[in-house]
Amino acid sequence: MYPSTLEKLMEYLRVLPSVGQKTAERYAMRLLELPKEEIEAFANQLLLVKERIHKCAICGNLTESEKCKICEDPSRDKEVICVVQQTKDLIAIEKMGSYNGVYHVLHGAISPIKGILPEDLDFQNLFDRINENTKEIIIATNSTMEGDTTALYICKILKPNTHLTVTRLASGLPTGSNLDYADELTLMHAFKGRIKQ
Amino acid sequence: MYPSTLEKLMEYLRVLPSVGQKTAERYAMRLLELPKEEIEAFANQLLLVKERIHKCAICGNLTESEKCKICEDPSRDKEVICVVQQTKDLIAIEKMGSYNGVYHVLHGAISPIKGILPEDLDFQNLFDRINENTKEIIIATNSTMEGDTTALYICKILKPNTHLTVTRLASGLPTGSNLDYADELTLMHAFKGRIKQ
Repeated sequence: MYPSTLEKLMEYLRVLPSVGQKTAERYAMRLLELPKEEIEAFANQLLLVKERIHKCAICGNLTESEKCKICEDPSRDKEVICVVQQTKDLIAIEKMGSYNGVYHVLHGAISPIKGILPEDLDFQNLFDRINENTKEIIIATNSTMEGDTTALYICKILKPNTHLTVTRLASGLPTGSNLDYADELTLMHAFKGRIKQ
Repeated sequence: MYPSTLEKLMEYLRVLPSVGQKTAERYAMRLLELPKEEIEAFANQLLLVKERIHKCAICGNLTESEKCKICEDPSRDKEVICVVQQTKDLIAIEKMGSYNGVYHVLHGAISPIKGILPEDLDFQNLFDRINENTKEIIIATNSTMEGDTTALYICKILKPNTHLTVTRLASGLPTGSNLDYADELTLMHAFKGRIKQ
């Protein structure tokens, strides 16, 4: 019904996560309203990102240079590696501001349902990075079925390295939340992980 | 925190309606995953749309040629004009499939709060189109404060044209809905507009 050029643009917009026909329509209409220069700058940025952004050779974080800023930073503690599923998880931890180790970004999690097996993720690079100097691996995968599976897999592989401490982020009540609003699984985890005062 | 090229892309994505930082991040990550050719095609489509799509010289509908397909269609009844706020409203009515008149797309509605006054919308083209052959103007603006104001404005201007029937889409209970779920205003409109059986 829309002119074909516009339909085609909507088709591209629907590639974005959870964007359906209605949202693609709204986005296309908004884009149409923008001045020509802005659209050109947007289109150009898309190409630039694809051209310049790639994974850090060491940790998998997104970067414009060969190694990411965190891996290049001499003040970061290279003996502690925090394993995350996505770059956005790394960003969240960085925003917290109190972690001074380095990262390993898997860019996914093991999910037999989605057909994502260990060999599809960047575990080898992680295991290769670990040496006698490595003190701790902090597994910061999501508190979901997939995140748990991934954590379990990493634990199993790393078990023989007795010099290594492998930890996982605590599960429990979110700070500031009311106990009665927590779902049963969260509450169960909070009970299991209770800490002696 | 993200590489600057990526941050810049997120900035552009935030221009889209109701896209905040989190959504822009998700979109940018998805775009990064796409193969180079798809990103290039997407960027190209953005430019194409801006270049090719414009408003129909007669009705304001979006088109790639001078006049839109509906205005060019000799089988459409040019004596009935349906006034809508947005192109997507026209598309919705076309999908209904039982309207054979033509349209007038205002690309907005009067909204003193948002600073949109009658002179900011394409009313003049509408009034200029109306001639002695025009039988009916169907006002199909939204059932909102802004849509109502716009409808009222059109009615007032067209009142002197006594040969013209000006109608507005009925307000009432959505088909298939339960009465007890309707809000009071909808129910009030449904009562006011009750039809003798």
